[in-house]
Amino acid sequence: MSDSSIEDVLATIDATLDGARARWFDLLRIPSISAQPAHKADCLRAAQFLCDQLTDLGFEARLSPTAGLPGVIATHHHAGANAPRVLWYGHYDVQPADPFELWHADPFDPQLVDGPHGKRVVARGAVDDKGQVMMVLEAIRASLAATGKLPVNLTVLLEGEEECGSPSLEAMLEAERQTLAADFVLVADTNMWNIDTPAITTSLRGLAAIELTLHGPNRDLHSGLFGGPALNPIRALTRVLGDLFDEHGSIRIPGFYDNITEIPADMLESWRRTGFDDAAWLNAIGLTQPSGERGLSVLEQNWARPTAEINGIFGGYQGAGSKTVIPAQAGAKLTFRLVPGQDPARVIEGFKQFVNTRLLPDARAEFTVFGTSAGLMVPIDAPYVRAARNALEAEFGVPPVLAGCGASIPVVEAFERQLGLRTLLVGFGLDDDCIHSPNEKFEMRCFHRGMRAEARMLAAFAT
Amino acid sequence: MSDSSIEDVLATIDATLDGARARWFDLLRIPSISAQPAHKADCLRAAQFLCDQLTDLGFEARLSPTAGLPGVIATHHHAGANAPRVLWYGHYDVQPADPFELWHADPFDPQLVDGPHGKRVVARGAVDDKGQVMMVLEAIRASLAATGKLPVNLTVLLEGEEECGSPSLEAMLEAERQTLAADFVLVADTNMWNIDTPAITTSLRGLAAIELTLHGPNRDLHSGLFGGPALNPIRALTRVLGDLFDEHGSIRIPGFYDNITEIPADMLESWRRTGFDDAAWLNAIGLTQPSGERGLSVLEQNWARPTAEINGIFGGYQGAGSKTVIPAQAGAKLTFRLVPGQDPARVIEGFKQFVNTRLLPDARAEFTVFGTSAGLMVPIDAPYVRAARNALEAEFGVPPVLAGCGASIPVVEAFERQLGLRTLLVGFGLDDDCIHSPNEKFEMRCFHRGMRAEARMLAAFAT
Repeated sequence: MSDSSIEDVLATIDATLDGARARWFDLLRIPSISAQPAHKADCLRAAQFLCDQLTDLGFEARLSPTAGLPGVIATHHHAGANAPRVLWYGHYDVQPADPFELWHADPFDPQLVDGPHGKRVVARGAVDDKGQVMMVLEAIRASLAATGKLPVNLTVLLEGEEECGSPSLEAMLEAERQTLAADFVLVADTNMWNIDTPAITTSLRGLAAIELTLHGPNRDLHSGLFGGPALNPIRALTRVLGDLFDEHGSIRIPGFYDNITEIPADMLESWRRTGFDDAAWLNAIGLTQPSGERGLSVLEQNWARPTAEINGIFGGYQGAGSKTVIPAQAGAKLTFRLVPGQDPARVIEGFKQFVNTRLLPDARAEFTVFGTSAGLMVPIDAPYVRAARNALEAEFGVPPVLAGCGASIPVVEAFERQLGLRTLLVGFGLDDDCIHSPNEKFEMRCFHRGMRAEARMLAAFAT
Repeated sequence: MSDSSIEDVLATIDATLDGARARWFDLLRIPSISAQPAHKADCLRAAQFLCDQLTDLGFEARLSPTAGLPGVIATHHHAGANAPRVLWYGHYDVQPADPFELWHADPFDPQLVDGPHGKRVVARGAVDDKGQVMMVLEAIRASLAATGKLPVNLTVLLEGEEECGSPSLEAMLEAERQTLAADFVLVADTNMWNIDTPAITTSLRGLAAIELTLHGPNRDLHSGLFGGPALNPIRALTRVLGDLFDEHGSIRIPGFYDNITEIPADMLESWRRTGFDDAAWLNAIGLTQPSGERGLSVLEQNWARPTAEINGIFGGYQGAGSKTVIPAQAGAKLTFRLVPGQDPARVIEGFKQFVNTRLLPDARAEFTVFGTSAGLMVPIDAPYVRAARNALEAEFGVPPVLAGCGASIPVVEAFERQLGLRTLLVGFGLDDDCIHSPNEKFEMRCFHRGMRAEARMLAAFAT
């Protein structure tokens, strides 16, 4: 694409921003919560919406059925045999929106509100990942509108189960292996370094998710008439989970830290150069000190070290006041964030062993594993990474930070393992976007510059 | 009362059983559910029914208004200045009857059905407490019919809010202090040891209820993007509560076991003589060993030792599947069952101290106390207890078991604290009577022998 072509595309993006936002809002209004079976029809509606949008843009688009929610798959292969083949991945599903009472408006009625960086959009999925999906889609739309073509041979894969552990993804990648062939994967589901500085994410943590249920008596009991001799499974549960961390914040699961890949010195050095302010980061979330392994910085704890988080705990009476009950069972949901070198299956087995060796007599543990993925590091010297660095610097006037990420994008590991593809992670969210939380938002400025940056990157890949 | 007089009373009871049952059924047909405002008129109707019955028997009877439902107060003080003054307490309200679909008939259309012990009456309130109230009332009726008088100076207090936490009781005791003056309280709201063996309940546990909320970050966070450095309040909560019991099942709250009154040796011995089957009791609830302090039997753990029960725990995501969240807070509801000697206020303070000394950095604890009552022991050598023991042995041919009770009956503590009165707890329910559950029942054999025993006790108190 010539310099004048990219200027035409950017001008088109600037001129059509209102229409882009309107289409984005249409998608946000669909409560496509993949974790909740009651929202299955909404998920299908969101998939069809995107499939239709891609068809309208001239893609060959279709739904790819799975055992769960379908993927949206589309191709636009008209850039010629010498142009690079790019697989763009995103997801159309969102997290549950509860607790609803903390939202300032209906999470599925997107609001355009004022903030310190200008207008922002508030809704569940505003940024994760519907906003970033529409940002790329609208960059494509503008490229086609301005130039009549795309600079690369593009394949699109939009998943519907990213927020519930991607249970069908592996089978879909296997089934669609031919269609998904590409040189690399482009993903927009991560953050900028700050609102003025773009970032390329060069490491991701893996994820292992498990639910633990502890069973005690065969029915709920009156805690006066039975309390003392009757085992309380909440007691058994807190006893096990209360032992999960030692006094130094390290995780006691046997073998948990085995075989962890050391972070290269130059990457650690580049993290130090960011001048990241631990105290400010903690202060923003109401805390004063890093809670993980003692002696490590916030970035080290979040980017380079594994965690065990109890994401939910439940058992017995949860209503107003007091109820004198000993419940028959109690449970917790946990996720482990994993770093390169850790074996997710071994972590899960280690956790089961950890629990089973700490059970009170008569307590019985039941486990449900939701999915696992390993931690990853991205090669920072590949040609498409250099192209992206240049395109981002052209848009923002500063080079992108090469950042780690504490979160997981299991699909990245699946692309690597199943399709042999490396992934380029460039996203335009901000740390305060409240993803997975009430009042999730995406800055219009990030959406707009993100569109421009995506258009620039597509062009740069082809040069 | 002479031996021949009591024989006349018992003969009258035997001869008039059908009439007694008919009046009992009239009361059972009134759905006096105190927890449900829609049944307020029914509650008033039940109160008036009993007031009228007592008036017909020659009592001075009236309703005692409260902020909620009235008490029925009646006096029959014609036994002379040397006769004992007995305050009989019962309650005319009942639990809600749902789930209705599990009842074999309308819960407010009492049924006389066959069971392994002969006829039984099935209805909401059959035993708790309308059956036991009518059992005492009919014993009084027979005494008056056979002898023209009562052996004691009797005051009656029938409460209308026992099943919804007795919110007006303290104020009523205060307002009626003069009228309610007595030597002791007689309550028929407990169980026999088994259908052939009566029981006197000689100890009750007290109760202290508290809710703990642990606050962490100032909002819910993504457990990938923040996990590691961000404090997880569920981790903080399980760390605290997981430390609540030591390896021997003892509670670690400072001062928790201080000043506990030792169980008299003869009471412990009487418990041993019951031949209580720990294994059978545990097996019925799906367990194999007593879960409380090591080395103690089921009865000791439930009747004589305090507990700390986590009745509810909550925090983070509780829906289907997995959600990668670090919640802003997590909490638990606890009740402590207390035994005589423990100071409820000190237990609550000890728990707060226990929590606050185990908090992870940046975690903040918030406490809500719901109410407390002390544990109680009934003096088994008081004259009225000896009289009851003799009367019960005369009726059943075996001495009563002097049983503890793991639950709490707040009214008993209120009588002690407000009026300085000790309470004699003798009831004729059975463990399988399904109180508070569908198909509540009272055996006719228990009702009949209960009436005879009540008549014998009233006579015995006067000798």
